[in-house]
Amino acid sequence: MTLQIQFGKRVREIRNSHGLSQEALAYKAGIDRTYMTDIENGKRNVSIQNIEKIINALELPIEDFFKSPIFLNH
Amino acid sequence: MTLQIQFGKRVREIRNSHGLSQEALAYKAGIDRTYMTDIENGKRNVSIQNIEKIINALELPIEDFFKSPIFLNH
Repeated sequence: MTLQIQFGKRVREIRNSHGLSQEALAYKAGIDRTYMTDIENGKRNVSIQNIEKIINALELPIEDFFKSPIFLNH
Repeated sequence: MTLQIQFGKRVREIRNSHGLSQEALAYKAGIDRTYMTDIENGKRNVSIQNIEKIINALELPIEDFFKSPIFLNH
């Protein structure tokens, strides 16, 4: 599984664990809602500037974001 | 410090610890050498597909890549 797909899965997992809607997370991150949908579905080659916005909006250290079985092959 | 700048610093740190030249890492990752220079200098809004290539070429788990004091404000 590519990192792009894993990233989307992890965003969705954390967003759901925070009880946030996709729309609420997109708004908080300053990212278009439809773009956020594509990111979660692994359909966008997301840039590091947008990665930063999303991880900040999820309010967890980046180290914890990437500490997940989702990323085990990387 | 932005994640873009931190990412470049961390790539450089690990590359040096492996005794790899910038050219060797660029070749291994399949990325243009001048583009790799810009990435290490925090000058490129690098995409997740290129992040994947670079971290794979550095041969460490992505979790370990982001486990560093460099990323402490994220």
